[in-house]
Amino acid sequence: MYRTHHCGELRLSDLDKTVTLSGWASVIRDKGSLLWIDLRDRYGITQLVFDEAYTDAALFDIARSIGREFVLQATGTVIERTSKTTKIETGEIEIKVTEMRVLNASKTPPFTIQDDTDGGDELRLKYRYLDLRRNAVQKNLIFRSNLAIETRKYLAAQGFIEVETPNLIKSTPEGARDFVVPSRMNKGQFYALPQSPQTFKQILMVAGFDKYFQIVKCFRDEDLRADRQPEFTQIDCEMSFVHQEDILNTFEGLTKSLFKSTLGVDLPDFPRMTYDEAFIRFGSDKPDLRFGMEFVNLSDVAKGKGFPVFDGAETILAICAPGCAGYSRKQLDELTEWLKRPQIGAKGLVYVKMEADGSIKSSVDKFYSPEDLKVWTDRAGAQTGDLLLVLCGEDEKTHKQLNELRLEMGTRLDLRKGDDFKPLWVVDFPLLEWDEDANRFFAMHHPFTSPKPGDIVKMESDDKALLKSIRADAYDLVLNGVEIGGGSIRIHDRDLQSRNFKLLGFTPEEAEAQFGFLLGAFEYGAPPHGGIAFGFDRLSAVMNGAGSIRDFIAFPKNNQGRDMMIDAPSGIKAEQLKELGIDVVGE
Amino acid sequence: MYRTHHCGELRLSDLDKTVTLSGWASVIRDKGSLLWIDLRDRYGITQLVFDEAYTDAALFDIARSIGREFVLQATGTVIERTSKTTKIETGEIEIKVTEMRVLNASKTPPFTIQDDTDGGDELRLKYRYLDLRRNAVQKNLIFRSNLAIETRKYLAAQGFIEVETPNLIKSTPEGARDFVVPSRMNKGQFYALPQSPQTFKQILMVAGFDKYFQIVKCFRDEDLRADRQPEFTQIDCEMSFVHQEDILNTFEGLTKSLFKSTLGVDLPDFPRMTYDEAFIRFGSDKPDLRFGMEFVNLSDVAKGKGFPVFDGAETILAICAPGCAGYSRKQLDELTEWLKRPQIGAKGLVYVKMEADGSIKSSVDKFYSPEDLKVWTDRAGAQTGDLLLVLCGEDEKTHKQLNELRLEMGTRLDLRKGDDFKPLWVVDFPLLEWDEDANRFFAMHHPFTSPKPGDIVKMESDDKALLKSIRADAYDLVLNGVEIGGGSIRIHDRDLQSRNFKLLGFTPEEAEAQFGFLLGAFEYGAPPHGGIAFGFDRLSAVMNGAGSIRDFIAFPKNNQGRDMMIDAPSGIKAEQLKELGIDVVGE
Repeated sequence: MYRTHHCGELRLSDLDKTVTLSGWASVIRDKGSLLWIDLRDRYGITQLVFDEAYTDAALFDIARSIGREFVLQATGTVIERTSKTTKIETGEIEIKVTEMRVLNASKTPPFTIQDDTDGGDELRLKYRYLDLRRNAVQKNLIFRSNLAIETRKYLAAQGFIEVETPNLIKSTPEGARDFVVPSRMNKGQFYALPQSPQTFKQILMVAGFDKYFQIVKCFRDEDLRADRQPEFTQIDCEMSFVHQEDILNTFEGLTKSLFKSTLGVDLPDFPRMTYDEAFIRFGSDKPDLRFGMEFVNLSDVAKGKGFPVFDGAETILAICAPGCAGYSRKQLDELTEWLKRPQIGAKGLVYVKMEADGSIKSSVDKFYSPEDLKVWTDRAGAQTGDLLLVLCGEDEKTHKQLNELRLEMGTRLDLRKGDDFKPLWVVDFPLLEWDEDANRFFAMHHPFTSPKPGDIVKMESDDKALLKSIRADAYDLVLNGVEIGGGSIRIHDRDLQSRNFKLLGFTPEEAEAQFGFLLGAFEYGAPPHGGIAFGFDRLSAVMNGAGSIRDFIAFPKNNQGRDMMIDAPSGIKAEQLKELGIDVVGE
Repeated sequence: MYRTHHCGELRLSDLDKTVTLSGWASVIRDKGSLLWIDLRDRYGITQLVFDEAYTDAALFDIARSIGREFVLQATGTVIERTSKTTKIETGEIEIKVTEMRVLNASKTPPFTIQDDTDGGDELRLKYRYLDLRRNAVQKNLIFRSNLAIETRKYLAAQGFIEVETPNLIKSTPEGARDFVVPSRMNKGQFYALPQSPQTFKQILMVAGFDKYFQIVKCFRDEDLRADRQPEFTQIDCEMSFVHQEDILNTFEGLTKSLFKSTLGVDLPDFPRMTYDEAFIRFGSDKPDLRFGMEFVNLSDVAKGKGFPVFDGAETILAICAPGCAGYSRKQLDELTEWLKRPQIGAKGLVYVKMEADGSIKSSVDKFYSPEDLKVWTDRAGAQTGDLLLVLCGEDEKTHKQLNELRLEMGTRLDLRKGDDFKPLWVVDFPLLEWDEDANRFFAMHHPFTSPKPGDIVKMESDDKALLKSIRADAYDLVLNGVEIGGGSIRIHDRDLQSRNFKLLGFTPEEAEAQFGFLLGAFEYGAPPHGGIAFGFDRLSAVMNGAGSIRDFIAFPKNNQGRDMMIDAPSGIKAEQLKELGIDVVGE
């Protein structure tokens, strides 16, 4: 070893010991006759001291030549500091250096290695090895490592077996786009990287593994947004002989245990809400319960008073923003513009202020009397000083727009604290989702999700409305408005699975070609089973109140799917293409 | 839950309890008025009993309709068995069934679900979900899951952090063939799947992570042999501020701990052997130390006696097969033919027998006197009843051929027991390996391996022999003749790394294009570091005395790289190819 101790280890109790430390020169303070170097490693910082009064001149010269991020090996005696600090754990001691070697020099880093760095995103991705030296990023990845340890500990104690499923599998056009891998040994054929181990974990249930889990990489070739990555990690789980209730209990237990063991946070029992209720109350299937501002439906009381916009609207919805009656014209205009952006697409915003003097003032005073408006504010439970924000339009769109506005107001009012945790099970998702453009049904969760037993009979119908009303044994775990997990009870009957494929527009031949192995497996004693998958990157981020999963991925890709550090993807040699039997098509 | 207990749980202490079990009908015995079903799940087997004397007629009919591998849910009372068995843990009780549901039927499986199944390899791969029901295979995968748990437990306790490295990286032609992934967003460019996380773990050391590990999938597009898979799993590790000695100690500790925790086996301290010594004594860099039969060099004593074959040979080597003097002419002929097969390529075999009557008999009696032969047998330490087997030819080839013969004799003499564990560190590997065909050096380990400090100076030479003599800080962990791990101290100096790339035939431009990020990282304070990777599949197999890694992989591919169950790889749609900007080239 190049060290006897690490840089976070030494204390007053180690006084007078001769020690050797290795690490990076973090901060260097040169006061002429005195020079200090903060030596940093993963474990902490220890101060090295050089003093002309006792330091050998040659050694002092070496010390003076050190630059930031040089790698040093220093030997010396542990002495008591004159000016102690509690900012670092080794703050009561320092090392009177007697010998020092430069193990490696460093150029000046292109940005500062500090919690608040001056480096831009792309620069930090290019020099990820320097970005990863920052304490903030290391802390995130250490958290992630601990979270994986605690996950495995909990699930293993519950009898789950971790089984590795393959990464070179088969492309299935249903769902998101696959990454594919040309096969050299089977020219013209391709493997696909798994979007999830879904069918394999079901096969493991058929094989009798009973309780399976895996912390596993998954791949989706989607256009990337800030919180998406082409490769991401799931905690993937499946159980046999269970009902939905058993799964919810098991994984509520896991989540509580993870919060307790990694953050010391005790979560209360998780409330549950149906998909329909979540939509009505919050316009979202992943409501953020850290704050109120629930939706208030004004359709019955706001129509018929001569305001043409409302009279012609399918739905009129409001939220009550507490303490915002003082919003200026300018603020309200800005909020209206924000709502009108194409990402949200609202036509306009109506407001009602509960003024401090008891009066009610609105943007629709021309059409509504104070008494009319009082009906609205009463229904919304608005207090003096509150602001009612009202949207109208088509039912579904208006719910979604108001959801965006609610979240925005929650953020502006600082009601969405990173260390306030509000979990929620959303249950009873629809089985099918109608796609107007494709003119067909898609699986809302995935094609293997079981309808609720009472709804199976509806699957024989041709009536679109009836089919839409089929509920599934599908559930999401939502935390602070983020879907951190989702799953379902699966179909385990071959005929029911075939019927579901048919509803989803598969011909029997397509179903057989893509999922024949699973249909086949269902004929050899498939047990009832179900499962869930957690987004591991996202869970890590939400647990730390972080907005982006990138901060919890060691080597993330940018929004163009590029690894800026290694410069991938890149061209490959013509002989590689030839061996694989493929050609690049010119633009 | 579909059960109150699992099938391995109930004991005499549970008598008279009403319980519900779920599982598979494993064995059904119908004696007319009495019928037993062995109900099986992952945890064990419990016997269900139906008796016309007390079983409801309708229920008895259901019981009679059950076939093998049907999935059942049975409720009943725990009663004491009249004929107890100790073969299963629940052997003292059975369930007097009062209610039973068929949860799913099963067709007759194409092979028996037993330890010794009648299914062939391909059939079992196609119906892997049935093969995985076999106790022998489940046991292997549960062992593997435990081995991963214990690995993580040990390394985490040692301060290692598990960091996930990316799977979509960059193709580097050095080493084995890459699997590549066409990029849709960057048309004409490709990701590669990692052959190992080598450069990323080194980057993590530059980033100050100090101790990294990962249990990680790796990919190599190689032509497959029985013990190779296109995707396989490594325990991948790296440490900073360490010398070779620290790594050997750390991972000897890991290996001992894994043996103790999963098998209850105490391994002694691991012996060490240099690469050169292993070659001289065993003709292999991964000698199987479970048995002796070390090489004996007869070159100096067997030449010059008029036997032209030996006189013209570079090297004459022997092993002593204990107790084999009784080998018949036929046996020796068969062994000679075995050696002459192209896979081994020996020209012939000379034998010397130490007969029971004290005489020495050989296939070269014409050229050697009994006294001549006694010199050989003395040198080999042969006893009465032993058989000396002698090969000759070019030095390196003869060593390799005799290694094969030694292993074969070890197997034939049953000296290679699966539960006898003989670990060995092989150290001081050469840095470079000359390839006659390519007329250039290749890295014996990989291009990032550090030469031993004293040998660095030789890297400036043009002398091939001198370059060949460079030793590296590289080591393999060998167990029972299988390389289960290998690693090295890495280069952490940019100039030295560039020099090594040059020796390996990289132009500066190629080195920069492929590994510029690593060379760049070395300029910003790279610490001394080194590591190791264990073949996880192989470790699992060797620890269980199993010959093939396939038995420890849930969904292995066959020798053509195909997943027989899901039928992958397969064709993809024209629109997928178009989106990716690639074409399949006709044969």
